Amino acid sequence: MVVPETFFAERTSLLKTSEIRELLKWVVEGDIISFGGGMPSPATFPRQWIIKIVTEGISEHGDKLLQYGTTQGLKELRLELKNFMEWRGIKTPSIDNIVVLSGSQQGLDILGRIFINQGDTVLMELPTYLAAINAFKPYNPELIGLKMDDKGIIMESLENTLKELKSKNKKVKFLYTVPTCQNPAGVTLSEERRKHLLELASEYDFLIIEDDPYSLILYEPIHVAPLKSMDTEGRVIYLSTFSKILSPGLRLGWVVADSDFADKFVLAKQSMDLCTSPLLQYIAYMALKKGLIQKNLKEICTLYKTKRDKMLEALETYFPEGCKWTTPIGGLFIFAWVPEKVNTKELVYECVKKYKVAYVPGQSFFVDGSGTNTMRLNFSYPSMDEIEEGIKRLAQAIKEKL
Amino acid sequence: MVVPETFFAERTSLLKTSEIRELLKWVVEGDIISFGGGMPSPATFPRQWIIKIVTEGISEHGDKLLQYGTTQGLKELRLELKNFMEWRGIKTPSIDNIVVLSGSQQGLDILGRIFINQGDTVLMELPTYLAAINAFKPYNPELIGLKMDDKGIIMESLENTLKELKSKNKKVKFLYTVPTCQNPAGVTLSEERRKHLLELASEYDFLIIEDDPYSLILYEPIHVAPLKSMDTEGRVIYLSTFSKILSPGLRLGWVVADSDFADKFVLAKQSMDLCTSPLLQYIAYMALKKGLIQKNLKEICTLYKTKRDKMLEALETYFPEGCKWTTPIGGLFIFAWVPEKVNTKELVYECVKKYKVAYVPGQSFFVDGSGTNTMRLNFSYPSMDEIEEGIKRLAQAIKEKL
Repeated sequence: MVVPETFFAERTSLLKTSEIRELLKWVVEGDIISFGGGMPSPATFPRQWIIKIVTEGISEHGDKLLQYGTTQGLKELRLELKNFMEWRGIKTPSIDNIVVLSGSQQGLDILGRIFINQGDTVLMELPTYLAAINAFKPYNPELIGLKMDDKGIIMESLENTLKELKSKNKKVKFLYTVPTCQNPAGVTLSEERRKHLLELASEYDFLIIEDDPYSLILYEPIHVAPLKSMDTEGRVIYLSTFSKILSPGLRLGWVVADSDFADKFVLAKQSMDLCTSPLLQYIAYMALKKGLIQKNLKEICTLYKTKRDKMLEALETYFPEGCKWTTPIGGLFIFAWVPEKVNTKELVYECVKKYKVAYVPGQSFFVDGSGTNTMRLNFSYPSMDEIEEGIKRLAQAIKEKL
Repeated sequence: MVVPETFFAERTSLLKTSEIRELLKWVVEGDIISFGGGMPSPATFPRQWIIKIVTEGISEHGDKLLQYGTTQGLKELRLELKNFMEWRGIKTPSIDNIVVLSGSQQGLDILGRIFINQGDTVLMELPTYLAAINAFKPYNPELIGLKMDDKGIIMESLENTLKELKSKNKKVKFLYTVPTCQNPAGVTLSEERRKHLLELASEYDFLIIEDDPYSLILYEPIHVAPLKSMDTEGRVIYLSTFSKILSPGLRLGWVVADSDFADKFVLAKQSMDLCTSPLLQYIAYMALKKGLIQKNLKEICTLYKTKRDKMLEALETYFPEGCKWTTPIGGLFIFAWVPEKVNTKELVYECVKKYKVAYVPGQSFFVDGSGTNTMRLNFSYPSMDEIEEGIKRLAQAIKEKL
C-alpha cells in the first residue's frame, strides 16, 4: 500500500521530531561527549530504595498496584502531593485540584488539546522548552515569542506585545513559562516580575502555564516562590515532574489547577491513556511520604552544583572571546551565545563528527527563528572529566570557525 | 476566574467521560457486585515474579531503566515482541515496525491524531469498544456502525455501506475492529469473513485497525489467525496490550504497522509522553523472554473459563424469557439482550441502589444510538459466588420491569 502524506490528518504535518531526541539517538553510539539531552545523572537514582518500595508495595497491595487505576491518580499520592505543594507555598482546596500525569509532557499535550483552537495566540519565552513547542504545534496556534534578559521575561516587552495584540482584537489564550531555572536559558524570573506578570495576566485576562521541573534543583540559597503560590484568581496552571527529583524512567508528573481546568485534564487524559501506572505512582507516593525526595535533593544539588561550577570554569578557560553564557542558579542547563557569524546548527554536525562532542543548537528553542548562534549545554549528565574535555573540544570547534 | 465553556478548544466539548469509568468509581465504595469494568482478576498477576524481575532489573540496569528511554521503546522488548508476533503468525521485517505504547489506549488516541480530519469516515462495529469511540470523537469523525451477528461483522451489510459511501463520493479512512472475542459483544469474526474483509479493504482502499487484546484468552481449542497475519498489502494496523496477559497496572501496549505508519506513531507519541517507562518495559521484556506469558496464559484461561461457564449457567438458570446472550469463545465479556421494553441505562441505577449489582448499559457501545436493551457483563473480575448471586439479583431487577 502506497501512503501519500495527504492520507494522514492535516495536523500530522505539524508533528515535528525533536532535534534533541534525534541527536541523542546518534550520540548513544560512539565515543561522543554529550551536552545534549537533559538527563539527570543516574548516580541520583535511589535504586535500592526503589527495589525495597516495589517489593513492599507489590507484596502488600499488588492487587491494586498491578490493576487499572483511576484517571485522576492514586488518592494517596495526590494527598502527599497536596502536602508537598503546600510546603512549596501552593495551597489547594482539595486533592481533586491535582491530577497525576504520565510525565509532565502529557500535561503539555493536554494543554494543547483542551485549550488551543487553530490560530489561538500563545505566548512563549525566547528561547523556550522545545518539547512544549512541539506539543502545542499540532494544534496550530500562533506562537509569539517574548524577549528575556537575565531576570526572565522583560515586562515592558510583554506589555507592548499585549497592547499590540489587543489593538488587533486578539486575545491571548495562555502564556507558557518555565519561570525558575529555565530550560534552556537557565534564567529565573525575579520576584518583582512575577508580581507584574500576574497583574498583566489579570488585566489582559489570560492564563499562565507555570512549568516547574527545576525549582528544587537550586545551587544558591535563594528562595523562589512559584507563580502558583501568588495566584489569587486561579489563572495559573502549575505543572511539575518527578523526573529530576526522583527518576525520569518513572514517567510521572502532575498538574495543579482550579477544578474547572483539573476536570478537563482528567477528561482528556482518560481518552489518552486511561490512567498512569499505579505501581509507579506508589513509588512516588512513598518517596514523598518517607521524605526521600527532600533527603535526596541535598545530594542531587551538591552533585550538580559541582558540575555547573566545573562547566562555568571550563567555559571561562577555553571559550574564545565574543562568547557569553548564563550562570544558572539551578536546573540542568547553561545557555551560550557564540559570535553571530557562527551558525550552531551547522556547527553541531562537525562537532559530533570531528570533535566528538555534542550540544543542542539553540535555534529550535526560539519560536521566532532567531538564536542561530546559540547552544544549550547540559551539565547534569556528563562526568566532571567529560565536562572539562568536552568544553575544550567545543571551544576548538568554535575557534576554527572564527 | 470564571471560565465559560467557550474558553476551551472546540474539541474539548467532544471529550466524553466513559460511563464505565464513572460507574466503576461508584462501585468501588459499598457492597456492590460489579459486572461493570473490564478488569482482569488480581489472582492472575504474577506478583512474586514481578518483584524478582524489578529487583534484578534495577540492580543490573538501573541507570538505564530509571532514565529517559527512546520513544520507540526498549530495543530488547521490541525484539521479543517481534518473536511473539511471529509466533502469532505476524511477520514483521524489522523491530522498527513495532512501537511500544503506554497502554493500547494510547494507540487509539494516536490513530485519531494522525489519521482523522474533521468529517472523515470511520467504520466501527455495532456495538464496539467504548474507549475507542471516546478516543476518536475529539477528532470529530463521522462514525458509521456495522451490523454484526454471532460470526462478527456481516459482510453483506459492510459491502452495502461501502457502496453507499462510494456513491456519495466518500472514502473510508479506516475500519476499527476487535475481531477476536470482541469487547463488548464477545463474538469472533469467522475465518471466511476475515478474508472477505481484507478483500473489501483492498477493493475500497481503506485501512483496518485490528485491536487484539483478547485473542490469547481463549476457552475453546480454536485457532484464530489475526487479520494482520493475512495482510499482504500493509493495510492492517495491529494493536495489542499486556493488560490481560500480564497486568493492566503496567500500562503497556504495542502497535505493529508498516513503517510509514509506525514512524508517525513515534512522531505523535514523542509529543504526547516522550517515552513509556523503561522500567515497566523491562518487566514485559523479561515476561516474554522467560516464557512467563505463555506459562501464565494456561492458568488465566482455566480460571476465566470456569467463570464464563458459571455466568452462562447462572444466566440460563435465572434470566427471564425474552433475554438472550452471547457465548464467547474467549475474552472477558458476555453481552446480553433483555426484552426491548427494558431500558438498561435506566435500569442500572436501580440495580446499583436497590439490588446492589452493576453492569455496563450497552447503548453507549453503539455509535448509532441503538442497543437500549443491552448490557455488558464482565466475568473475569467477580468471584464465582458473586457471579451466581449477581446474576440472580440482576434477573430479579429485570423481572420487576416486565
